[in-house]
Amino acid sequence: MPQFMDIHHGMQGITADQLDEAHKADLAIEADEQVHFERAWADPATGTVYCLSEAPSAEAVQRVHERAGHKADEIHPVPLSVW
Amino acid sequence: MPQFMDIHHGMQGITADQLDEAHKADLAIEADEQVHFERAWADPATGTVYCLSEAPSAEAVQRVHERAGHKADEIHPVPLSVW
Repeated sequence: MPQFMDIHHGMQGITADQLDEAHKADLAIEADEQVHFERAWADPATGTVYCLSEAPSAEAVQRVHERAGHKADEIHPVPLSVW
Repeated sequence: MPQFMDIHHGMQGITADQLDEAHKADLAIEADEQVHFERAWADPATGTVYCLSEAPSAEAVQRVHERAGHKADEIHPVPLSVW
């Protein structure tokens, strides 16, 4: 399944609880689109949130984020990864 | 230990082998700076590489990347994360 890194801007001041809540809202509905949000990271200072997902397409990622109330500003395929 | 997401641009056409080699070059010297590069993702089409690390500072992340031959274009702290 393709992997995607999506980015949200304008989230200045986001708290750990808010990030957790937003992520859970994605997880609650992601199966409808065969998407899985694996991890998310946030910087409250610059208001940036990064989400790593597996999904059939960038559009599927966006549909989940939109329905959960937080549309992504950028969605980038990341076909290569290393540990 | 603080976490960072750093981004490299201009890596159009990067292959899985090249990403693996670049990541291994970081891993080989990261201990000198108390940095650990956990994962990296790449999109050969747009030439973007994302690296997730644990490090004492953004400057320490950059010193490892510079010595390994691939300076980051952006380094963002990501103090919050969820699974």
